[in-house]
Amino acid sequence: MSNIDKVVLAYSGGLDTSVIVRWLQETYGCEVVTFTADIGQGEEVSPARAKAEALGVREIYIDDLREEYVRDFVFPMFRANAIYEGEYLLGTAIARPLIAKRLIEIANETGADAIAHGATGKGNDQVRFELGAYGLRPGIQVIAPWREWDLNSREKLMMYCEQHNIPVDFSSSKKQSPYSMDANLLHISYEGGMLEDPWAEAEEDMWRWSVSPEAAPEQATYTTITFERGDPVALDGDTMSPALLLETLNRLGGANGIGRLDIVENRYVGMKSRGCYETPGGTILLKAHRAIESITLDREVAHMKDSLMPRYAELIYNGYWWSPERRMLQAAIDESQQVVNGEVRLKLYKGSVSVAGRRSADSLFDGRIATFEDDAGAYDQRDAEGFIQLNALRLRIAADKGRKLI
Amino acid sequence: MSNIDKVVLAYSGGLDTSVIVRWLQETYGCEVVTFTADIGQGEEVSPARAKAEALGVREIYIDDLREEYVRDFVFPMFRANAIYEGEYLLGTAIARPLIAKRLIEIANETGADAIAHGATGKGNDQVRFELGAYGLRPGIQVIAPWREWDLNSREKLMMYCEQHNIPVDFSSSKKQSPYSMDANLLHISYEGGMLEDPWAEAEEDMWRWSVSPEAAPEQATYTTITFERGDPVALDGDTMSPALLLETLNRLGGANGIGRLDIVENRYVGMKSRGCYETPGGTILLKAHRAIESITLDREVAHMKDSLMPRYAELIYNGYWWSPERRMLQAAIDESQQVVNGEVRLKLYKGSVSVAGRRSADSLFDGRIATFEDDAGAYDQRDAEGFIQLNALRLRIAADKGRKLI
Amino acid sequence: MSNIDKVVLAYSGGLDTSVIVRWLQETYGCEVVTFTADIGQGEEVSPARAKAEALGVREIYIDDLREEYVRDFVFPMFRANAIYEGEYLLGTAIARPLIAKRLIEIANETGADAIAHGATGKGNDQVRFELGAYGLRPGIQVIAPWREWDLNSREKLMMYCEQHNIPVDFSSSKKQSPYSMDANLLHISYEGGMLEDPWAEAEEDMWRWSVSPEAAPEQATYTTITFERGDPVALDGDTMSPALLLETLNRLGGANGIGRLDIVENRYVGMKSRGCYETPGGTILLKAHRAIESITLDREVAHMKDSLMPRYAELIYNGYWWSPERRMLQAAIDESQQVVNGEVRLKLYKGSVSVAGRRSADSLFDGRIATFEDDAGAYDQRDAEGFIQLNALRLRIAADKGRKLI
Amino acid sequence: MSNIDKVVLAYSGGLDTSVIVRWLQETYGCEVVTFTADIGQGEEVSPARAKAEALGVREIYIDDLREEYVRDFVFPMFRANAIYEGEYLLGTAIARPLIAKRLIEIANETGADAIAHGATGKGNDQVRFELGAYGLRPGIQVIAPWREWDLNSREKLMMYCEQHNIPVDFSSSKKQSPYSMDANLLHISYEGGMLEDPWAEAEEDMWRWSVSPEAAPEQATYTTITFERGDPVALDGDTMSPALLLETLNRLGGANGIGRLDIVENRYVGMKSRGCYETPGGTILLKAHRAIESITLDREVAHMKDSLMPRYAELIYNGYWWSPERRMLQAAIDESQQVVNGEVRLKLYKGSVSVAGRRSADSLFDGRIATFEDDAGAYDQRDAEGFIQLNALRLRIAADKGRKLI
Repeated sequence: MSNIDKVVLAYSGGLDTSVIVRWLQETYGCEVVTFTADIGQGEEVSPARAKAEALGVREIYIDDLREEYVRDFVFPMFRANAIYEGEYLLGTAIARPLIAKRLIEIANETGADAIAHGATGKGNDQVRFELGAYGLRPGIQVIAPWREWDLNSREKLMMYCEQHNIPVDFSSSKKQSPYSMDANLLHISYEGGMLEDPWAEAEEDMWRWSVSPEAAPEQATYTTITFERGDPVALDGDTMSPALLLETLNRLGGANGIGRLDIVENRYVGMKSRGCYETPGGTILLKAHRAIESITLDREVAHMKDSLMPRYAELIYNGYWWSPERRMLQAAIDESQQVVNGEVRLKLYKGSVSVAGRRSADSLFDGRIATFEDDAGAYDQRDAEGFIQLNALRLRIAADKGRKLI
Repeated sequence: MSNIDKVVLAYSGGLDTSVIVRWLQETYGCEVVTFTADIGQGEEVSPARAKAEALGVREIYIDDLREEYVRDFVFPMFRANAIYEGEYLLGTAIARPLIAKRLIEIANETGADAIAHGATGKGNDQVRFELGAYGLRPGIQVIAPWREWDLNSREKLMMYCEQHNIPVDFSSSKKQSPYSMDANLLHISYEGGMLEDPWAEAEEDMWRWSVSPEAAPEQATYTTITFERGDPVALDGDTMSPALLLETLNRLGGANGIGRLDIVENRYVGMKSRGCYETPGGTILLKAHRAIESITLDREVAHMKDSLMPRYAELIYNGYWWSPERRMLQAAIDESQQVVNGEVRLKLYKGSVSVAGRRSADSLFDGRIATFEDDAGAYDQRDAEGFIQLNALRLRIAADKGRKLI
Repeated sequence: MSNIDKVVLAYSGGLDTSVIVRWLQETYGCEVVTFTADIGQGEEVSPARAKAEALGVREIYIDDLREEYVRDFVFPMFRANAIYEGEYLLGTAIARPLIAKRLIEIANETGADAIAHGATGKGNDQVRFELGAYGLRPGIQVIAPWREWDLNSREKLMMYCEQHNIPVDFSSSKKQSPYSMDANLLHISYEGGMLEDPWAEAEEDMWRWSVSPEAAPEQATYTTITFERGDPVALDGDTMSPALLLETLNRLGGANGIGRLDIVENRYVGMKSRGCYETPGGTILLKAHRAIESITLDREVAHMKDSLMPRYAELIYNGYWWSPERRMLQAAIDESQQVVNGEVRLKLYKGSVSVAGRRSADSLFDGRIATFEDDAGAYDQRDAEGFIQLNALRLRIAADKGRKLI
Repeated sequence: MSNIDKVVLAYSGGLDTSVIVRWLQETYGCEVVTFTADIGQGEEVSPARAKAEALGVREIYIDDLREEYVRDFVFPMFRANAIYEGEYLLGTAIARPLIAKRLIEIANETGADAIAHGATGKGNDQVRFELGAYGLRPGIQVIAPWREWDLNSREKLMMYCEQHNIPVDFSSSKKQSPYSMDANLLHISYEGGMLEDPWAEAEEDMWRWSVSPEAAPEQATYTTITFERGDPVALDGDTMSPALLLETLNRLGGANGIGRLDIVENRYVGMKSRGCYETPGGTILLKAHRAIESITLDREVAHMKDSLMPRYAELIYNGYWWSPERRMLQAAIDESQQVVNGEVRLKLYKGSVSVAGRRSADSLFDGRIATFEDDAGAYDQRDAEGFIQLNALRLRIAADKGRKLI
């Protein structure tokens, strides 16, 4: 057992992390500092104060990190059009580096020598928390109770509470869910329960952030997003802060049944896992960002971004936000976004989002050249022959020398 | 003017290519062989015979290439999950190499020394036809009338018809469309007209293959696709030929408003262009293929496929199907697909397609390990600590030596 | 302590692995099967039999794997021009998967339930052995004594020998070296000792396989390598087996001071380490392979190989030879090599190898087109204008709209 | 014939470009501005003034661009360790964008509406000049006489001189060479003549910048290069300007027979071509840059650079220096170089350059962890087990379900 005096715990106020507070106190004989963040999970964070106090915690941090989260993590990631394994918008992954950073900041402020978290030993989150922590403070110690203790069932946890007089309110609706859930401004996720059978369709009453497409309005909703340097800055002409904008998009998307996803994904720790996600605002945002890029980005820049994207998404999924390689890729991505300005008009209808228009003062779309009508000499069709001839040259030489392509 | 005796023309039977027949006869003084293919464009090809005969053509080829098209071009491409610029399913691009191949085969059979096509000098199709032709027969000559003549408006074309007694039926509905359209079993495309303004939303009556999401049934449709080695082989348990399967998916998708796309894309010849596409079956197929891969592919194979995909899609878009580099990538992709077997159940509803379940005898999803419940020792959570420690080591050493990540 | 009845040990016959035999017998109370392979390390393997017998081993495997090693591991890797971190020819990494495969085969033959190896917990080799073993037999148990015991110094090892009557011959020259060395037909490596200071130049008497460039002959040596499907098959016209060919190249290269390398590399386990390598034959082979590819490979295939190579090399370095992703890449690489046939003439002189000529019946070099003289119309210089115009189009449009490149 | 009033010509003062001056005057009836740059080609540029004057040129630019060339083009490229097709250091390619930029600057200053160059229609240089020009000034007109005129032999050129009283000095040694040569501070290149046979070894007297390895000193030369942010700033402790540093390295390298290269490369215009290059300083610099990176770069950053490098090199080779995609990649590369500081000691001997040592205040090499000796707990070998177990997990699950890797 390492010699730990003070530990900062990522504390939700729920059953699990309340048990962890006491377990840390007892097992390590150390002082516990709790840190509770509002990153848009949709639950009140203020009750965490009383709960922590009741557990004897003296240093209690409760932070509203919503703007920082969206501005410094979600939006930079969306500049890359990041999607993991063709589908997943990385809603859990992108929240972790912020928590890791804040845990270390608080450890530094409070003189703690360790941090602790409530992530299990089977998942990606432990990796994301800990890689971030080690990268930001290499000498930090990390306690991951789920990897250490034997309280590996709900029954054991509740018995522990009873034995240790932990005054947790067990009636919260979230805890009664059969699913393991996680939420922040970008998404809510569901795992476990009946989802452990990949053939079983998710039940309608599982979803919390969006109505079903069937229940969505019969009439389409249109909205216009304004982008500056690759980031959304206004909705339907109203300038909004990053968090407010994403919240508003979530509401719009959720009301129209947009952003549900049901996938089997590959975890960094080596197993496949079934996950369901609701990412209403993010789903709209990705479509819109691609659309504004489609008229403002150079072709080769766009293709280079597409070729780098899978690696970038993998980095974030695996927990390497706080890494020099992510910074290196981000430098390239951000360089490309200076010109990504303009407006995208979107149609939201019963689960789908489609682009109805895009325009920009930085548009590279040139109607004079693209036109099927007379282009008044803007483009000389005879250039195409030389273009084709030289692009074909290597193929012709090869064919001439007997190479077969069929 | 090159010395050309006989030319094989890709002949649709429409106005443009009928003019080309006569123009080739007059300009090059050569014999014209017409080739008309059914690749699922949804129009009768048999009338092309009478039209060609009326133009004095003696060698007339009319081929039903639907099965070959889907089996040897569409399905291999879908094994790669190919998408161009994040959106486009390559419905036009993938049909071109088949036409190029058949043009060369017919040129070889008929002793022709040239081929001709009706693609303009501004688009990608000329490149795709000609790269294919040169790669398959390096000494072939190519005539692209749109790059040569001055009949660059509808009026001039019609005057040419009148002057040369070309008996074309001008009443076909397609010709009255304000859009430039192209169709085959994978998709139908629309360009030009009001679409040349990227801010203008496509009009509802433009779309031909799908009902609007609003007009789709109020009740979701479920369907199950069976895959073998990465290719779909059955729908709802009925084994079908490739073309029949795709046709059936098109009908299902179209009826549910699925597969509409409105984008601005980057052409290989250097300009941006607005295109609208309907790809009902392909949109369903891509979703299903990704889903069956999600349980059968190894993680690193899946990620490698994702990293190669943009390049593969670019190759096909640019016209390099018949190239050694496409064959090289295809070898890697096909190697990965041996295990991509199983079933995917899909929900189609008012424009969106979602996965309701996936299962496979080759599934790598392991419920014993993934479970949130007791895994009976299938996974040792303590392994995660070493995994994280060594993955973090380089970051810790760097931080220890003063490197900053913020 | 797991319940292990029989373990197959990768046994060199040296001090360390002899101690491991006894330690396994004592610690696990299990039977030990020894496996000693000749992979061209340059030491007799037959003495291993008597040593193992003296330790009470009853099942002793001594295999000459040299041909299999070069044919099935070294040559396939060289088809990819694999280099790790710009310099390292992967001489250690590529031998490991063969050892792992043979350990599992012997475990299967002898009914063993575990394998053991003498690699330390700091290096890459443990990873390479164990990933291979788990991939080939998922239920195998692996014992890595260096990660378990406390015999972490030479003194403790020798005391252990004394206490346990291990009859090891301590006088072998290799053991007296201040360096940690490893050799096989592809290379010999040196680590540790004074090399742990990256500023210190390696001492001349460290190197064992090559003379110093200074001591090499004053006259250059020329040799010609013949390739078939990407693999070398003959030297100066003499057809040779894979192992004999590599041995001969090693002799030629070593005599001319070729193939020394001194680098700091990044280990998979997270640290940087200094390594010196002698790869005489491999250094020549890489140069020759690139040269034969230069005239036989299509440009885009060559570039695609170059872009895939770093990933391929990383896979092998990290120990993923036995993985589906390596097989996927290999499929692409092997597809490209069908045409890599012909001869390369090389000049070896005092540490450097240069190409003096290359020729092939499959050459794509076309003197008629490349010539600075009159090409008799093989190439139309006017095609270049269209080629440039269309490649420039996107840049011109952007500049026209005010984009700045400076 | 376009309406051109004034054209800026890249003028060497040699036969070809002198003919071009007159040909432009006569063919286009326009004024010619000459631009002659010293980029370290090793020939006096001042005589160009008198020659241009004799041809009636009134606006004559003669610039010493050596420092700008090395600082703003060569060094940024070396930060990427750029090599084309595994061998070529891009010595010609990297000089072209500077010339293109200067041509456009002068066109802007002098009010010219066109530029002209003496590159042929078969090579890469025309593409590099013109892409750069169009990207920097989209409306510029480009005249490439070699693609237009019929003076396609030396005899015709000389007859033209005679007919037009062009007072060119035909006795310069360069012009009598049987090779087509090009030189700048980074390299000298040779093409044509007997090199058009890829089997023929280059003759010793072709090489101009380096002695043969055989003729190099019997004693090795050691030198130390100091790097700051990825760029070399000092040799053996003497701080030098970029151009002086590269000149000095060229002298050192040339004297030791370093930097000769003989390859067949793939041109952008579609053909293979044989080229010989001498890049003495660049060859040393690349080795040194890799060595300083080996101790200062994070592993994943280094690998990412390696994976991006082939694309970056291809961009430069093909002429896309002045492009947004090159800028995007450069942003990533430059981000990585902030920490690339320190010293590399090199040994130069008879054609080869090897690393004798590297050190840096920013070194990430950690002797405490890497050591084979007791590391005092800096590294816990037991972490390796968890690391391997989780990296193997996907492979074990697959094997468990019957997947075969052999």
